[in-house]
This record gives sequence, structure tokens and C-alpha cells, in this order.
Amino acid sequence: MSNKPIFVVAGIGNASGTGASAARIFSKAGYRVALIARDPSALETLASQVNKAGGEAHPFAIKDYTPQTIRDTFAAIRKQWPKGQSNEIRAALWNTGAAVWKPFLEITDEEVKEGLDINVAAAFAFSREVILEFKSNELNDIGKRGTLIFTGATAAIRGNVTTSSFAAGKFGLRALSQSLAKEFGKQNIHVAHAIIDGVIATGRQLARHDDDWANNGDVRLDPDSIAKSYLYLANQDRSAFTWELDLRPAHEKW
Amino acid sequence: MSNKPIFVVAGIGNASGTGASAARIFSKAGYRVALIARDPSALETLASQVNKAGGEAHPFAIKDYTPQTIRDTFAAIRKQWPKGQSNEIRAALWNTGAAVWKPFLEITDEEVKEGLDINVAAAFAFSREVILEFKSNELNDIGKRGTLIFTGATAAIRGNVTTSSFAAGKFGLRALSQSLAKEFGKQNIHVAHAIIDGVIATGRQLARHDDDWANNGDVRLDPDSIAKSYLYLANQDRSAFTWELDLRPAHEKW
Amino acid sequence: MSNKPIFVVAGIGNASGTGASAARIFSKAGYRVALIARDPSALETLASQVNKAGGEAHPFAIKDYTPQTIRDTFAAIRKQWPKGQSNEIRAALWNTGAAVWKPFLEITDEEVKEGLDINVAAAFAFSREVILEFKSNELNDIGKRGTLIFTGATAAIRGNVTTSSFAAGKFGLRALSQSLAKEFGKQNIHVAHAIIDGVIATGRQLARHDDDWANNGDVRLDPDSIAKSYLYLANQDRSAFTWELDLRPAHEKW
Amino acid sequence: MSNKPIFVVAGIGNASGTGASAARIFSKAGYRVALIARDPSALETLASQVNKAGGEAHPFAIKDYTPQTIRDTFAAIRKQWPKGQSNEIRAALWNTGAAVWKPFLEITDEEVKEGLDINVAAAFAFSREVILEFKSNELNDIGKRGTLIFTGATAAIRGNVTTSSFAAGKFGLRALSQSLAKEFGKQNIHVAHAIIDGVIATGRQLARHDDDWANNGDVRLDPDSIAKSYLYLANQDRSAFTWELDLRPAHEKW
Repeated sequence: MSNKPIFVVAGIGNASGTGASAARIFSKAGYRVALIARDPSALETLASQVNKAGGEAHPFAIKDYTPQTIRDTFAAIRKQWPKGQSNEIRAALWNTGAAVWKPFLEITDEEVKEGLDINVAAAFAFSREVILEFKSNELNDIGKRGTLIFTGATAAIRGNVTTSSFAAGKFGLRALSQSLAKEFGKQNIHVAHAIIDGVIATGRQLARHDDDWANNGDVRLDPDSIAKSYLYLANQDRSAFTWELDLRPAHEKW
Repeated sequence: MSNKPIFVVAGIGNASGTGASAARIFSKAGYRVALIARDPSALETLASQVNKAGGEAHPFAIKDYTPQTIRDTFAAIRKQWPKGQSNEIRAALWNTGAAVWKPFLEITDEEVKEGLDINVAAAFAFSREVILEFKSNELNDIGKRGTLIFTGATAAIRGNVTTSSFAAGKFGLRALSQSLAKEFGKQNIHVAHAIIDGVIATGRQLARHDDDWANNGDVRLDPDSIAKSYLYLANQDRSAFTWELDLRPAHEKW
Repeated sequence: MSNKPIFVVAGIGNASGTGASAARIFSKAGYRVALIARDPSALETLASQVNKAGGEAHPFAIKDYTPQTIRDTFAAIRKQWPKGQSNEIRAALWNTGAAVWKPFLEITDEEVKEGLDINVAAAFAFSREVILEFKSNELNDIGKRGTLIFTGATAAIRGNVTTSSFAAGKFGLRALSQSLAKEFGKQNIHVAHAIIDGVIATGRQLARHDDDWANNGDVRLDPDSIAKSYLYLANQDRSAFTWELDLRPAHEKW
Repeated sequence: MSNKPIFVVAGIGNASGTGASAARIFSKAGYRVALIARDPSALETLASQVNKAGGEAHPFAIKDYTPQTIRDTFAAIRKQWPKGQSNEIRAALWNTGAAVWKPFLEITDEEVKEGLDINVAAAFAFSREVILEFKSNELNDIGKRGTLIFTGATAAIRGNVTTSSFAAGKFGLRALSQSLAKEFGKQNIHVAHAIIDGVIATGRQLARHDDDWANNGDVRLDPDSIAKSYLYLANQDRSAFTWELDLRPAHEKW
């Protein structure tokens, strides 16, 4: 087994969105890929695709995003690719979350709680494992120990009618990312936050829209285009880290 | 019992800070005051002070800020001052929260969870009760059904080293306030968020600092001055609502 | 002549908007009022109104907003109410500007230049005179030397289609206000910026709209309500200065 | 002469900073490069370097950044590489400006005016020429007519002590960039703004600092790293445009 960096991605949905694209694109760029998600069959499908394409991916199915499960998953990743063999985790993507769009008075206590758990608390636990891994890495040739990227949303910078719960979580995630960027930049750990301001052409969205929409790159985001921005962020050298960028289709109204 | 508006304030600490000042100042402005906090003796002290000064305050001690406790507390307020007698809740202040300043890796899962519970989830439950009350009010003479104010912090707009958990909560609270402002402005419900950017001269802070600091209005915020801004917000008529303002001492570096 | 603070307001249009309301409201609060604008007859009308209502206003008609004219005007104010008699300028409002809403390619070089001249460069000259006056004041009983307020707009925080020129000026003005707030807060000079996010019910707007709009406080800003917020800002003591607040009608979509 | 896209860069200083790096990097990526600046010898030096490296650069020395001079320069570019031969301007960088850091009261009328002229008004004129060029282009293979990038600064998002004039210009430039992004995104023209939050290792800065600083990529920005981010922006396809990103050294305090 050669010495390759590892990219850990949490959140791949049904393997047709940003997380899956990132897995493929980081794999082509020379990363081993650790896939974390709740749907085992989507994980298997994606891992197979990556492996058939000449990459090296491994699925880590989880039952939930509690801190303990996340810790166990990182232990499993380290077991799969033991650190001693120079398999360093060098990039990570937090790409999961729960989006509830509802009038405020219809949101239940449970939905508020679940939103905070998955959108914020789980991201804290994931970040903790990633930062600990990065801290044990040496600087690479571009002066970094690792890059941790968070997928954000319009709701990360703007609360709106029907987004109180979702925005609370996404604002919170953005706060986490900024705090980490400031705290760990000094250790050459790069933390970034992407504001996805538009609808992503995932399998689910493609099923909801007609072909005109599907084929019109001006009105929805390609998961691959988002993933390329993530790879660009991972490739930024230590003299010029981006904390935040926005991404939206050319014709998006904003 | 005369027909008076009610001001509900959650979070009065040891009765020496913003919540207590707001209780006194709203009382002087003609509001009955419902005091919610976890420390029964501080509540009693403050209620006595307000009542002796000619106001009308009632303490509502709570054991925690879970949604159920918050709902029970509003039920108790309604029992104390039954709605049928035109005792309308017209203003409310969410002034509580937990501030943890720690390096990220020292923050425990439990601290993250508690921070989200008190800084965000509890605010959702409080807001729900307040909004429901406001919705049942008629427009008053300045065209409003009620004013809901949130005490925010610097950490509501800027994550920083050692503030990952606190900022996640305060960003989330700010998101909630903006979402509510947009959703319920159309119903003449006014929601506002104050960014307190500096140290407040509470009893606790006064105990930590010397007299020079205590007496120097240029370097710390007076709780009364914050409370006056809250009363000003409550008095804004429907043609000019402020969602957000910042407050800081004259000499604060920012 | 008694010892009264002076409020200087630049920009009163046809005496039916924010500047005129501010003049009236500060006059009632005990200020002498120096009125600066380009329309002499509107100035005379407003000065008469204020004086008949028991206040003390003086018109200072100007031919343009060049730095030299602004300096000359402050010289004229000082001549009218000599400093030696303790007539101190304690509050000032910059309420003028040019708003061009046009597709970018239709905006001429001259419009860009004029927009920057009036929205930014003139504000620099006005601020300079005001700050110099404030610096020579003693602290008043709320610990301030003076309050300088800028009327901003939605375009101060968001560029948009057709607002490139207007937004460039209003962003620039906001930058000035924030820089001044930080530089002169340490000298107990309070600088504030109000984001007016909606249409103001000025005479000009009332003429454009029907009575439903005119009478509907939910959909447009009352100049008096804005002016009250300015007086509130001027009354903030040194322990709690607001740099920025937003103001919008209850039903405004934002 | 083959059919190649043209990259126009305004502002190359002494050919050791961001503009020069961008020229080299876009040249290597297959662009012809039109170099605009006031220092003819720096222009010649850079053009020679690019040409010797196998690229194609042409210097366009200007005497000032007035709108008329900018228009004349674009006419000269079109004369050098006539449009009819499919030499399309596909990318442009506005990388110039004047930075005055001074206490507010020391800034002269003339400095305010010059700051606005070069930081804002000249950028309007440059943008106009660029947008007109882009509008006449067909969509390229990534669905764009062109990419216009602005070099911003910390002062574009935060006014501060001693930056009133500089921040007014940089806020204004940011407003322009956002307005253009919104207005012309619909025409598949991509407008971006980079917040450079730190000191760039230009020749001038290297002369001011010691070797430790020069060699320490953690504390200053490499012009090449900034330029790479600009090339990445130019390469973004129409489904995922970034309007704004920040760039800072790993160890920068912010």
C-alpha cells in the first residue's frame, strides 16, 4: 500500500450529490477516500465506483451522527488505514445536515433539537476528530497539516421566513468554522466554509425537475463544480487560505 | 387590577445585570413584569425591589430551560395575570444563555450540547410562547402586537479562538431572531436582536474589577443603558422597526 | 440667548422628510437647529415652522456640497451662534446624497463622479467640521462630546442590479461612519449609521402613491419615526453607543 | 496569430506583486495578456518576461486612470489584437488603487478625492469597457462570456482607525463588484471580489522586511498564490460562480 493522503467525507446522501462528487474528485487527485454516511447501499455503490475508476475508497456506514458514533468511525478509519503506514488524513469534508423548512410555529421541539444535533453538535464531534488527526501530521509541501471544509448554505448567512430552525443550525456551523479557522490557522490547519447559494443538481433534485432544468447549468449547481472548489481549497498553500467563498449558478437571483 | 401590558424577561442572573435593569425600566414605563430565572432568591429580591418602587413584578422560578419548563412557566404567567382581564404580554426579553470560552479541543460533547440547548433550543421554546401570545393581541396604538428582544453578543457575529461553542449558540440565536423578524413582521410583531459588544457592569463583573473600572462608563456597559435601548425598541412604531443594533462602551476597541 | 446645544442637519430636501423631522424633533428636545440644504425656500419654510413652534432654527442655504462650501457654512453657523457664548454643536446629521438607479451601462462618468462627490466626499468634509467642533466640547452629563449620525440605505450593505453607483456611494459612506466611530469613540464622540431599509413617506413619495399607501404605516417609514431613532442615538450615554441600526416598516420584505 | 483569449490586468505596480503574478499565471494558462499600468519600465520588464517565457504580453502604459484614458487604452488593446480575429477578452483584473492610512483629520480634500477617483470611479470605467467586451463574446465551453475580478482588501469589509479614506474606496469597489455580479450574472458574465486580508510579499514589502519574513509563507501572502485563486475563479463554470472569497496567510490574526 503506497503512502497516500486520506480524504474523509461525511454525508453522501444517495451518492449523487456534493459528497459523492467530492469523493470522486479527491480520489482522482490522489486521495484515498473514507466515506461516511447513513445509507449503506449508497456507500457501497459509491465506493465501488471509486474503486473501479482506479481509486481507493472505503465505506463507513453509521447508524447516527452522535459524537460517540463519529469517534468510533474515526477509530474504524484508522484501523482500515493505520496511521503508522503514513496514511494521513489530510482533507475532510462535513457535508451533512438536516434542512427543515417550515413556518416557525409548526416546528416541533424535536425538530429543533435534531436540527442542532446534526447541523451543529455532530459537526463539533467530526471537527474534533479531524483536527486531532491534522495536528499529528507534519507540514506537507504546501505548508499545511490538513484542510477541513464545511458545506454551508444561504441559510448560513441569512435567516428567513420558514428557515428559523435550518438557519439556526447553519449559522451555528458557520460560527464553528470561523472559530476553528482562527484557532488552528496558526497550526497550519486550514478550515473553510462554502456558502452554497442555490439548488444543487443532486439525484433527488433532478427527479423533481424537468430536463430543461437538469440540462441548464445556469440555474442549478453541478455537484462536480462544487467539488472542484473544495479541491481548490485543499490545494491552497499556507500563504493564502480562504475561509469562505460563495457558490451560485450564473442566473441565480440573490 | 388595571389593564397593563406585561413584560416577560427570561434571565436575570443575580439580579444585577441587563435582565434586572430591563425589569425595572419596563416597570417604570408601565409594564407588569414577569421574571423568569433559575435562582429563586435573586428573583424574589428583584420582584421585591420592583414592587416596592411601585411596580408590579412576579417571580417565576424555573429549574431548567427545557421547552416543557418554558411552556409551564408561560402557563403560570397566564394564571397569575389571566388574559381575559386584558393583561396582555406586549414585550419579552430573552436574556439568558451559557458562555463557554475554551480552546476547542477542551470543549466536551456535553458542553456543546448544553450550549445549544440553552442558547438556541430554549430560545426557540421561549419565542414560540411569546409569538403565540403576541398573535392573540390586537394592534396597540403604535401599530404593534408585541416586541420580542434577544440579547446577543460579539460572538453572534464573529467566531473566534476559544469561542467555538459560544459563537455557535449566539450565531444560532441571531439566525432565529432574523427569521422571526421576517416571518412575523407582517403580523406587526417586532423582533429585535442587540449585539452587546463589551463587558457589562453586572454585579459579577464589578466584583472582578476595581473601582476605576466600575466608575468608568467609557469602558463597560451599564445594564441600565442596555435596558433603555430595549425600551426604545419596544416603543418603536410599526413604520420603523429595528431588527438589529450594536451597543458598546465609548472606548471599546472593535 | 440661553446656552443651548446646536443640532446641524445637512439635507432637508423639500422639508417633508427625515431631515426636516429631525430638525423638529431635536428642536423640541432643546436643540438650536442649523439647517443646511440647497433649496432656500424649503429652508425658510422649515426654519419658520420650527421658530413658530417655539424653537430656534436658522437656515444656511448652500449652492453645492463642495468641501469649501461646507467649511464656509460651518463658519457661518459659528458666526450665527458664536462658540464663546457656549453654543456648542452637540449633534449633527448627514442626511443628503444622490440616488441614481440605472442599469450599469447607462450610468455616465459624470453620474459616477457626482455620486461619489455628494455621497462620500461631501460627507468627509461635513464630518471633518463636525468632529472638529465636537473635539472642542467638554463632556456633557452623559459623557459625550457629540453625536454624528449618517442616514444610510439598503444600498449601504447590498449592491444590486441598477444600484452600482448608488451602492458604491452608500457603502463608502458606511465605511466612513465605521472608521470615525472607531477613531473617535475614544474621545467620547459618538458616530452612528442608520440603514433605512424601505421607502420613506416624504412629500415626494406621498405625491407618487395613493392614500392607502400614505396611511399605511406598515409599508413605509414615517420621517418622524426615523427622527426619533436619531434622537435616541443622541441620548445614548457613553457606556452604550450604537454604531449601526436598521429601520424598516413592519411589513417590509427583506 | 492563433485564436487565444485575452486577459487584461490593470495595476502591476513595479511588476513584483499580484498583477504581475496574475499576468504570468494567466499567460501560462493560455491567455494573451494586456498589461495596463502607469510605470512604463515596469510594464516593459513584465511584458518581456512573459514573452520570453513563451507567452504573449503587450504593455499599455497610461498616464492616469481617468475614464477617458481607460477607454483609450481599451481602444489600443483592440487595435493590438483586433476582435475580428477572434481575440476575445475573456478575463480582466482590476488590481490598482490608492491606499492612504492617516488619522481622519489629517486627510485632505484632495486625498479623499483621489482615493475615490482611483479606487472607485476608475474601476467603474474599467468595468464598463470589460463588460462591453464580454457582452459581445459567445459563451465559451464552460458557459461564460468572461470573468472580471477585483482585488479587495480587509478595508473592503471593515472601516478602522486611519482607514476612513481607504475603506470608503474599498467598500465602494466591493459594492460595484456585487452590483455587477448580480446584474451581469444573468448574461453569464462572472464578477468576483477577493478580500486580501494580509500583507502581500511584493518587491516593496520584501524590501521593508527581513529575510525571516520573506521566507515565511505563514505570515504574508504570495502574489502567485493570489493569482492562482484568480485563475481558479476564471475557470469556474457557469453552474458555480464565486462572487467573493477571502485570502490570508495561515498565521494571520483576524
